[in-house]
This record gives sequence, C-alpha cells and structure tokens, in this order.
Amino acid sequence: MIVKSQKIILSRNLTTENGFILKNPEVAFEQYSEKGPVILITHGGLSSHHAAGRYSENVNEEPGFWDALIGQGKPFDTNIFRVISVNSLGSMYGSTSPLSINPDTAKPYGPNFPFITMVDMVRFYKLFLDELGIKEVFIMAGPSMGSMQSLLMAALFPDTIKNVISVATAGRITPGAMTIHEFIISTLKKDPDFNNGNYIYTGIKPTLSLKIVHEMARIYYTHEETLKKIWDMPEGPDVQKKRSEAIRNYLTFMIEQQVQDKDPNCYITLLNAINTYNLGTNLFNGNYEEGVRRIKAKALIMNIDTDSEFPPYWGKEVVDILNSNTKDQATFFTVPSIWGHIGCLREVGFLADKIRNFIKMVL
Amino acid sequence: MIVKSQKIILSRNLTTENGFILKNPEVAFEQYSEKGPVILITHGGLSSHHAAGRYSENVNEEPGFWDALIGQGKPFDTNIFRVISVNSLGSMYGSTSPLSINPDTAKPYGPNFPFITMVDMVRFYKLFLDELGIKEVFIMAGPSMGSMQSLLMAALFPDTIKNVISVATAGRITPGAMTIHEFIISTLKKDPDFNNGNYIYTGIKPTLSLKIVHEMARIYYTHEETLKKIWDMPEGPDVQKKRSEAIRNYLTFMIEQQVQDKDPNCYITLLNAINTYNLGTNLFNGNYEEGVRRIKAKALIMNIDTDSEFPPYWGKEVVDILNSNTKDQATFFTVPSIWGHIGCLREVGFLADKIRNFIKMVL
Repeated sequence: MIVKSQKIILSRNLTTENGFILKNPEVAFEQYSEKGPVILITHGGLSSHHAAGRYSENVNEEPGFWDALIGQGKPFDTNIFRVISVNSLGSMYGSTSPLSINPDTAKPYGPNFPFITMVDMVRFYKLFLDELGIKEVFIMAGPSMGSMQSLLMAALFPDTIKNVISVATAGRITPGAMTIHEFIISTLKKDPDFNNGNYIYTGIKPTLSLKIVHEMARIYYTHEETLKKIWDMPEGPDVQKKRSEAIRNYLTFMIEQQVQDKDPNCYITLLNAINTYNLGTNLFNGNYEEGVRRIKAKALIMNIDTDSEFPPYWGKEVVDILNSNTKDQATFFTVPSIWGHIGCLREVGFLADKIRNFIKMVL
Repeated sequence: MIVKSQKIILSRNLTTENGFILKNPEVAFEQYSEKGPVILITHGGLSSHHAAGRYSENVNEEPGFWDALIGQGKPFDTNIFRVISVNSLGSMYGSTSPLSINPDTAKPYGPNFPFITMVDMVRFYKLFLDELGIKEVFIMAGPSMGSMQSLLMAALFPDTIKNVISVATAGRITPGAMTIHEFIISTLKKDPDFNNGNYIYTGIKPTLSLKIVHEMARIYYTHEETLKKIWDMPEGPDVQKKRSEAIRNYLTFMIEQQVQDKDPNCYITLLNAINTYNLGTNLFNGNYEEGVRRIKAKALIMNIDTDSEFPPYWGKEVVDILNSNTKDQATFFTVPSIWGHIGCLREVGFLADKIRNFIKMVL
C-alpha cells in the first residue's frame, strides 16, 4: 500500500486547558481507506502517525508502525472500515507544534509554544473529527501514547467513541514511564546549545543531548537477544575488542542522521503532556475511578508482560473498574514478549488475533 | 564496625598486557580482621572497595556494600577469617588510576593512563597479595565486576584461589553489560568539556555527562516499586503535576554533589577494562572453555533472575563447564529479586544463606 501524509487546517481555534489560544491549528494525518465505519489510529510518543503502508514503491522502506494490522484483509480491514491515522498536537511530524509558525510573530513557536496536556491533545482530535464531519468513531486504537489518548478520548467524548483498543497502556501515567520522560526532558535541557529552547531562533541545534537520548533509546527499547546477535558475530583473537566495536557501532550507527530531523522543543512538549495524563483529570474533580467510569466504549486492553514502563497491572486496573460498573465492558490480555514496552509494535501476531476477535464481537 | 581505608605501595612494577609499565603502583584496601584463612572481597565497577562497616560512629552513614555479609557472626565471619577488601586498578577510589601522579611527568596520568584489561586488574591483585605475603586465598568473592575478577583470578592463579563466590556474573562480558558500558563511555566522551580527557589539566571538569550518566543509573539500577512509592505520595488537585515534580526531584536530587568526586577518565578506564573480560583470554589462545576449565577452585555462582545485564544463563554456563570437568565443583543458584542487576547488593538475605552453606561445605 502506497500512502501519503495529508494536512488540513482547522476552521476553529483550540483553547488549551491553561487558556492559550492556538489559532486554526493544523492536523497531519494519513487515510488508508475512505468508506465504512471509522477506525481512528493514534501513535506512540516518539513516533509519527505513519501507521501503515509505505511512502514509495521501494520495498526496503520501513512500513508504518502497525502495517501488519492495517490493510486489506488485515484486522483493521481497509475493505470494511475507513481507517485514518492522526498526528498528535505537539508532534514534530506535521501537526501544530513548537515547529509551527506562530501567527502573532511570524516565527516558529519554539519555546513559546504553550504547555499542553493530554486533554488538549484529545480535544485537538475531536476538532479534527468535527472538521471531517465524523460524528462517530467505531474504534479508536493505538500503542503507548496513542493507547492512553484513546482511553481519555473515550472518557471525554463517551458518545463519540464506540470502541477502544489500547495497547501498552494505563489509566494514568505510570511511575516508570514518567521517570523515563523526566530523564529525557532533563537530558535535553542540559544541552549547552539548548539555550532555553531558543536554539530554534539561533540556528544552532542542540544535537549532543539528542544523540544521548537516542542511544539510550536503542538500549532501552531493545532486548538482550538483539544485542547478543551483534555480540556473537566476531570470532578469533581479540574477540572481546571486536565485540565492543560492534556494540559501539550498534549504538552510534547513523545517529547523526537519525537526530537531524528531531526537535527537542517538540519532545519536551509531548513528554510533558503525556506526564499530565490521568483519566481522573481535573475536569472530573481529579477522581480517577470516576474518570474511568465515564468511558462507555467497549474496551480491549493489552499490556506486555515484560514492560517496565506499563506493567500489566496498570491496564488491568482500568479493565477492573470498567467491569465492576458494566459486566464484560472490557477485555484484558497480557501479551507474552521479550521486548518490553516496544512489544506493542513487535507482537503483531498476538495483537492481530485478539483484535480480530474483538471486532467480530462488537461489529 | 568502624573501618578505615589503607594504602600500600607495591615494591614491584606492573607491566600491562599491552606492555606499559606502571611503576610501583598503589593499592587501596580495607582490612576487617587480621587472623585466619584469607577472604578477599572485590567490588562492583561503579563502587569503591568499602565493603563493610562505617568510617565514623555516625549510624546514619551508609555502611559498606556487603555489610550484611561481613562481620562477627556474619557469613564472612571476622572471628574466623582474615577479611580484606581491595580496590581495583583504575578505580577512582585510591588505587593507581588516571587520577594518580605519573612519576615520569609529575602530573596526573589523566588520558595518558594506559589501556588496561581485566587480566591486568587481576595481576594487580596478585602483586598485592604477594606484597602482603599472602600465598593462599581461601575465598575470593565479589558482586558484578568483582565477581568476574574473582573467576578470572581463579583461572589465572588456580593454585592461589581455593574457593570462589561470584554474584551477578558471567565467564565473559555479556552483550547487555557491554552495551551499557559503551553507552556510558560514549556519553562521557561527548561532553563538550571532556576535551579528550585533558580536562584534568585544564581544571574544567565535564560534569554535564556525569550528571546524565548518574541520572540514567538512578533509573537503570532501580525498580518500578521504588518509583511508585515516590509517585504515590502526592494527592489532591494537579496530582500528576506534583508527581512529575517528585520524580524529577528523585532523578536530580543532590546530583551535583554526587558527581563532584567522580572522574570520567577513571570510569572510561574501568569500563573499557571490564569489556575485555573473557575467561578464554588471549593467554589461553582465546579458547573460552579451556579458560573456564583452568579454574581449580570450588565455585558458588549466583545470578539474579531479573538481571538484564547478567541473566542467569551466563553464570550457569560457567557452572556447567566446570561440572562437566569435575563433578560438583560448582554450585549455581538463581536469586529471586525485583531489583535486576543491583539485586547482587540488595538480596543479602538470600546470599547470606547460600554463602553460609557453601563455607560449611568447603571449610
């Protein structure tokens, strides 16, 4: 499937929870099919909204992050559903973000982009649906950040979201995830070229800290098995020296290129927003269980057994609250995987099976 | 137990594997008792040789890293054994290292300290024993780096080392550990003030990268349970904001003070040395199994079930090779723990039990 990323400008403004008015924000999205009940896909915090297909005929190009789940005959079947993947507010991949031009100054927002929350991100999606004239979402689904946005959207707009599929998730940001996010923010801000985010105006980009964060991610979002394959290759004399070099290459290969299009202000904006996430938002008096119970959607919730950011009990907690209210409203599975958090993208066989069954049940 | 760290200057030089001559190196050590068969304790790569007791009467002072295992009536019983803990070559805690004065230049070695290997570190310990007139070590024991030095010492000096206790270990540096070490080295070298290690002469210390590495270690060597305790404390409105602040404080609390006495050249020297570790050292034609089989000592080997750097199968591999050669030469246990690698310091109850039984058997 060859796909392209599109953009629309919203005809309405978005007023953030803290009262900042984002004038006519832009939304980047991909649409994989045009007819049928709507499936809305949301993405992980560090990735783009490129969920399926490729941008070119080149089969070596990495396809979208849930390509195994979206397409003809796949669980999110483009023959049956209208499948749209949307880019988050604050993301560096096209939607309004610190990289966008501030209409009041004709310069990028940069560090002057407002502090946004997960509630703002979800309201942004609602404005996007309104703009497209979509009144009802049959399924909202996503991994990681997208999984939480899906649950929050179902709590804030219970009559719009009919079903939710939430993978590697929680009802409020977990201690493990919050800590990694604070570490990344702390590291990005330490860069001598960060300059309180004003690098965007000076043109001197802080790449030092971006490289450190991306090297860290190469360790954090992998597994010993991958590292062992690299480690196992060298042979003969000085084998340890060769192994060290191979591992060093793994950590730093193409890192300059990888960070070139990454923006620290966007990362910080997104991670700060994710860290505000709690279904018991201030809108519902901060009552967590009350927030969860606002969800009317049927929910399929899955967490990865080895995920130290979102251990299964965090997803299970949401399921238990939902089911204590309405019997069988939510279904929970633990995904077996060696991959930790990134299992939400890698265990597509397991996910496909559970998603097919869920769709059969709710269709 | 009030203890003090001592130093001796060796009367012999150490020639490194790569042919550099370290003239009359210094050894820092602590001695907890003076009579009986010798127990030699070695430390983890990022810690000092302070293994037991306190330096002052202040009970709030953190005791040595294996304080629960060393002392009167404890498994390494100071009433029965002569217990000595020794500081590694290259360590910033007193033994000869990049911080030491190079006798040829009257300045610190700094970046001109030679590249050393684990074999060099172990030969350094042997010179130390010779200097003290110790011909036989009843038990050599340590966590992490110390665990591997103990095994390598038993392979290089099989008639000197009678028994080995090796915790969170392997017979060669694992992919997971090697990767973390390369990440730390890579991060330290990226610091704009690192200056190829010459910061030691300019007086401008690269603290930026040290802070990042230590913040990373606060995540890496902990568990969600600790983070959750911090996360759970805040209440009321804006609870997520308060949680983020609490987690940020956890990551950065006293970090300036913590890195003040840390030295990047020493870290790099130690981590590079650890990454050369392989019982099948070039000395034994690089044959791993042959290296392992050089060990004559009885061995107690324990790995932590949740350790992603040293998963249990790495320790088990050594035990299997030893026992295929000599029945019951080695005993293996998997330590149950939520703590991952750092379980080698935290699961002292489990360790104490197994060490007591092992000592009964070999005494």
